[in-house]
Amino acid sequence: MHTIDELREMIRRELEKKEYAGEPRSLYDPIIYMLEDGGKRLRPLLALLAYNLYRDDVEKALKPAIGIEIFHNYTLLHDDVMDNARLRRGRLTVHKKWNRNVAILSGDAAAITAYRYIEYCDDRYLRRGIDGFNQVAMDVCRGQQYDMEFETRDDVSEEEYLKMIHLKTSVLIAGSLRHGALIAGAPEEDCAALYELGGFLGQAFQLQDDYLDVYGDVNEFGKSIGGDIVTNKKSYLLVKALELARAEKGKTWQELTRWLATKDCEPKKKIRAVTALYDRLNVGELTQQKISDYIRESRESLDRLSVKEEFKEVFREVVRELTERKK
Amino acid sequence: MHTIDELREMIRRELEKKEYAGEPRSLYDPIIYMLEDGGKRLRPLLALLAYNLYRDDVEKALKPAIGIEIFHNYTLLHDDVMDNARLRRGRLTVHKKWNRNVAILSGDAAAITAYRYIEYCDDRYLRRGIDGFNQVAMDVCRGQQYDMEFETRDDVSEEEYLKMIHLKTSVLIAGSLRHGALIAGAPEEDCAALYELGGFLGQAFQLQDDYLDVYGDVNEFGKSIGGDIVTNKKSYLLVKALELARAEKGKTWQELTRWLATKDCEPKKKIRAVTALYDRLNVGELTQQKISDYIRESRESLDRLSVKEEFKEVFREVVRELTERKK
Repeated sequence: MHTIDELREMIRRELEKKEYAGEPRSLYDPIIYMLEDGGKRLRPLLALLAYNLYRDDVEKALKPAIGIEIFHNYTLLHDDVMDNARLRRGRLTVHKKWNRNVAILSGDAAAITAYRYIEYCDDRYLRRGIDGFNQVAMDVCRGQQYDMEFETRDDVSEEEYLKMIHLKTSVLIAGSLRHGALIAGAPEEDCAALYELGGFLGQAFQLQDDYLDVYGDVNEFGKSIGGDIVTNKKSYLLVKALELARAEKGKTWQELTRWLATKDCEPKKKIRAVTALYDRLNVGELTQQKISDYIRESRESLDRLSVKEEFKEVFREVVRELTERKK
Repeated sequence: MHTIDELREMIRRELEKKEYAGEPRSLYDPIIYMLEDGGKRLRPLLALLAYNLYRDDVEKALKPAIGIEIFHNYTLLHDDVMDNARLRRGRLTVHKKWNRNVAILSGDAAAITAYRYIEYCDDRYLRRGIDGFNQVAMDVCRGQQYDMEFETRDDVSEEEYLKMIHLKTSVLIAGSLRHGALIAGAPEEDCAALYELGGFLGQAFQLQDDYLDVYGDVNEFGKSIGGDIVTNKKSYLLVKALELARAEKGKTWQELTRWLATKDCEPKKKIRAVTALYDRLNVGELTQQKISDYIRESRESLDRLSVKEEFKEVFREVVRELTERKK
């Protein structure tokens, strides 16, 4: 099997070809810009890894793998417009660097580009490939809709939150693995097991994000700590804290809702206070437990695969890398 | 063959099923809303007519035909956001009725819905069907990008304008015919001839729109006359007028550019003055000539089809209906 570094290099080179760019160039420049900014390339990497479990000629899976990366970036591009975000991975967002109309239209063109790339596969996998991609793409939209609706609610349950991040984040990770396996001709049960695995991994990944925002090491995390707290972002920690505090109906509930209603206070003060409430409710620990549950479940899905034990080891390595990350 | 009214009724009934709507309903309500407003259903109608040239079981082509209609409406939805339009066919646009984020995200979901519907076809046509749809969808984006760029230029050539409307409007009409024929198993040359035919028809259709905005009968046109003139919209008439007046470098050029630079004047006065300049430059007549050229070319494409003469007659009827319209 190829190493992760080899696969990353293949992805980099394929993206550098910019074969999707046509005329007018102004339509494609924002797509080139958004794809230049690096990122972890997690999704195409997982697609290639899944393909590589069954076949050696991974270069044949490069275009669909990149199609998934383009789709992912397109959703970020439109999300950034909706959130009016200024920065993405340290660079100006497309709608800030150009304008909103450019971001909408180039995003639309990126989605079509994704479909173009996704369909590079043997004819016999085409229908299942497109069907699967359609389902995943729609789920991502559904997740984004739930996410926007949750922002104005303070009674989001843990179950609702987990469903939302599953749709918004995990299905695309799941779909990347499934698509890679599918176009390699993997057995249907393996495709299903990899989809499950990706779902659990995505959940663990997102909860880790939520956790690190509060409890990350400021020197390793890269972003500043407490960003979610300052903006009242509905993270797993906040959803869980609200749920626990509400049940108590005591002082913690009053304090927490007071902080959520507080505007224009000193960010550091709010971060310190809300973190103290999280500590009191033990939500950091509870988040870590939930992450462990998902990791365990992803390992169980992995065990079910029909591939050689040594191949599974590569996957375990990825799981470790993703879940032990500090940033 | 089915009559146009029969086909329209089938389209109406299929759309009424709303099989695309899922959860959260808030994501799909704007799609339902935009599809409720009627419209001519020109594109699905053309897809069914093309299918019906080769096969009788048109109900099998209903879902892809509707996929094209959904795609068309999705492009209008995002265009309306970009243009900040308030009304569409007499009703509030989605971003005015809800908000901009809803319009962006539900538009994205509508595009995916279109892909879902498009792929209803026999496996052997799937790749060509998706390929063709991807090309058309991307061309529509390219056309919209050119259109936005042309708004800030006053040196757009006739050739550039015709290319822009071809991409923005005609390719989808062309693609509707091609897709209908493709999934009916039509010969490749017929698919190509129908694509050409649709392209010419689309051009004629768009130029007729431009013409009626200035020279339409106010009682029949529905919209108020002169809207394009008031907003300086780059119509074929304006592009042609600028081109002719620029070549003269005389008084007409000065007058025309002065009116284009005029803000906040009485609309009726501007419409009267610019129409007089159009009359002087004979652009109404030139537009009618151009439309006739396209109609003639579309008839030539039709003649090349391998189908029975009586079937072609149905198409001639559609061409007539489209091009002799007064609104």
